[in-house]
Amino acid sequence: MTDEDIFAGHIGGKLSIALTSPLATQRDLSIAYTPGVAQVSRAIAADQTLADRYTWTNRLVAVVSDGSAVLGLGNIGPRAALPVMEGKSALFKAFADLDSIPIVLDTTDPDEIVETLVRLRPSFGAVNLEDISAPRCFDIERRLIEALDCPVMHDDQHGTAIVVLAALKGAAAVADRELRSLRVVISGAGAAGVACANMLLAAGISDIIVIDSKGVVASSRTDLNPVKSELAQRTNPRQRHGGIAEALHGADVFLGVSAGTVPEELIATMADDAIVFALSNPNPEIHPTIAHRYASIVATGRSDFPNQINNVLAFPGVFRGALDARARVITDGMKLAAAEAIHSIALEDLAPDRIVPSPLDPRVAPAVAKAVATRADTEGASA
Amino acid sequence: MTDEDIFAGHIGGKLSIALTSPLATQRDLSIAYTPGVAQVSRAIAADQTLADRYTWTNRLVAVVSDGSAVLGLGNIGPRAALPVMEGKSALFKAFADLDSIPIVLDTTDPDEIVETLVRLRPSFGAVNLEDISAPRCFDIERRLIEALDCPVMHDDQHGTAIVVLAALKGAAAVADRELRSLRVVISGAGAAGVACANMLLAAGISDIIVIDSKGVVASSRTDLNPVKSELAQRTNPRQRHGGIAEALHGADVFLGVSAGTVPEELIATMADDAIVFALSNPNPEIHPTIAHRYASIVATGRSDFPNQINNVLAFPGVFRGALDARARVITDGMKLAAAEAIHSIALEDLAPDRIVPSPLDPRVAPAVAKAVATRADTEGASA
Repeated sequence: MTDEDIFAGHIGGKLSIALTSPLATQRDLSIAYTPGVAQVSRAIAADQTLADRYTWTNRLVAVVSDGSAVLGLGNIGPRAALPVMEGKSALFKAFADLDSIPIVLDTTDPDEIVETLVRLRPSFGAVNLEDISAPRCFDIERRLIEALDCPVMHDDQHGTAIVVLAALKGAAAVADRELRSLRVVISGAGAAGVACANMLLAAGISDIIVIDSKGVVASSRTDLNPVKSELAQRTNPRQRHGGIAEALHGADVFLGVSAGTVPEELIATMADDAIVFALSNPNPEIHPTIAHRYASIVATGRSDFPNQINNVLAFPGVFRGALDARARVITDGMKLAAAEAIHSIALEDLAPDRIVPSPLDPRVAPAVAKAVATRADTEGASA
Repeated sequence: MTDEDIFAGHIGGKLSIALTSPLATQRDLSIAYTPGVAQVSRAIAADQTLADRYTWTNRLVAVVSDGSAVLGLGNIGPRAALPVMEGKSALFKAFADLDSIPIVLDTTDPDEIVETLVRLRPSFGAVNLEDISAPRCFDIERRLIEALDCPVMHDDQHGTAIVVLAALKGAAAVADRELRSLRVVISGAGAAGVACANMLLAAGISDIIVIDSKGVVASSRTDLNPVKSELAQRTNPRQRHGGIAEALHGADVFLGVSAGTVPEELIATMADDAIVFALSNPNPEIHPTIAHRYASIVATGRSDFPNQINNVLAFPGVFRGALDARARVITDGMKLAAAEAIHSIALEDLAPDRIVPSPLDPRVAPAVAKAVATRADTEGASA
């Protein structure tokens, strides 16, 4: 795959608009546009809920970014973020048959981002936040969930966390270990790290240590932002202090979501049959070949190694399920159901190098959508 | 065309997203999404102008409305406006192969509308304002043209004005009259009325009287808003006063863009071989059959009578031409060029009941686009 291949694949962008009904005759025009459309507008004016039925919003996801944390590239701005958002929209279409429009914002101010999306609300049916830097992403997501009567999810947090949980279920099954008994070390306390910690806690894992650039996130520290401070209350039950060396000693699972590295000699101190998820992209925290010297199961974010942890296993189905169920929020229960649905497909063909399905497996998104919609109905999360 | 036909044509909305490159294989995924897309994002971060080449924005029109003046339905709000905006987007695609996203805003505050579009600016390549009430529409359009470095046009104003001018050129040619010598009465001083007056003035017609609900828009009046006040300075050269009766007496052209009616006995006082454009929809200001008792040429906005004045003859080609030329603004010169391009196609088959081409004529949008782009290049309106 050369640079030329890549750039050629992006010329003119990756999306276009298609018409779902014809516009070839005078009659077509009179139905789709004036005078016919006035009937439809009048009906929606009288009953706003009809917008679900007579517009595309009910299957439309806004993919929203301010370009402040794009892939591993950092704050490269909205224009440079747009190819990623178009790619995301393309994945929504290809995997879940959801329409989607990329919205890149020329502001990084949380108040302005929230305000803008509140004003845009009638234009779409759900919001996928993307590549927004931590800790702003936590605040922006929380406030949007409160302000908007539709599903909102920051994929860098929850998409990652769902697939990580699915993969860890797969790894535990392969290793014949009890998921809840695993001692987990998460390297990285940004969007993905915090969400993974919350998701694993919700799945019943209690022994989780989170590491940031200063060491173990512990309640004794005075330099923590509110999100990390809150996390410190619910993790690190054995009150470890220090850095990654102290944390990893005897741990079962290393989960890297840090864009950093971890030395081989520390991986060597983990428990027997360790599990290593080195998800930093494009450079994993430790090379899979080296990790395999100590770990029985290794996963990365890369497509050229086995066990690729890729958010595309989660977000298309999660949004499709939430929209199908007319859910107003995406709950922890729906995320857990999504992880279990991904895992149940992996179970059909489980192996140390197949702990999650392939990102291209067409069975995944429909299974996730169904599980999420069912859970939404059960929880009464629907509108 | 029954109500059932109409509603059936709108179920699920009228648009969907299509992919312009495949997403079937791991290689496709690596090019369109990670890791390949990072190369493209990095390139745009280094040179923002590359967003034109590697995203869809350069052919993407945002169709923006606050739902405050939708068709003849008034202020029905953003959700009820959405079917119209989707229809507009469909027309952009069908006639000019431009992609387009409907953006309906849950605010009617001009400051908030301008601010929102400034924040969204990196997401699109041009803005088509639609169905925004007067006089707010004048202020919003003016401020957006100043604030955004891309083409912005309120179609209810300028799309209408362009097609009206094209039709009037056709009518003058059929009647063998000099365009500039026509005495024109415009009934309606909202978005369309004001823009038509300006366009006809720009085309060299000097004897124009504009009527609002209080009578002739004249500089002696003290109840005019700033837009009408300014218009009064440049119209009504013979200093007429009073109402539509005084204005129409001896006039050559009646242009109705008012949603009102005009009595037969007043049309009867017009000059011989009068021209009547009764554009109010769905009910023309005077029925075409009655108008024809006095007028040699009659046009309406309706598809079931000859000479349909339909904005679709203008806006797809105008935006396509502006985007093709990378124009930063849509100038009066570009609008005049669009009208002339429409007229030149009508000339090939001109008759009293064929003063403009059919809205479905596939030759029109490419001809308009070419004329507009050429004019933009000539004027140096391009970026």
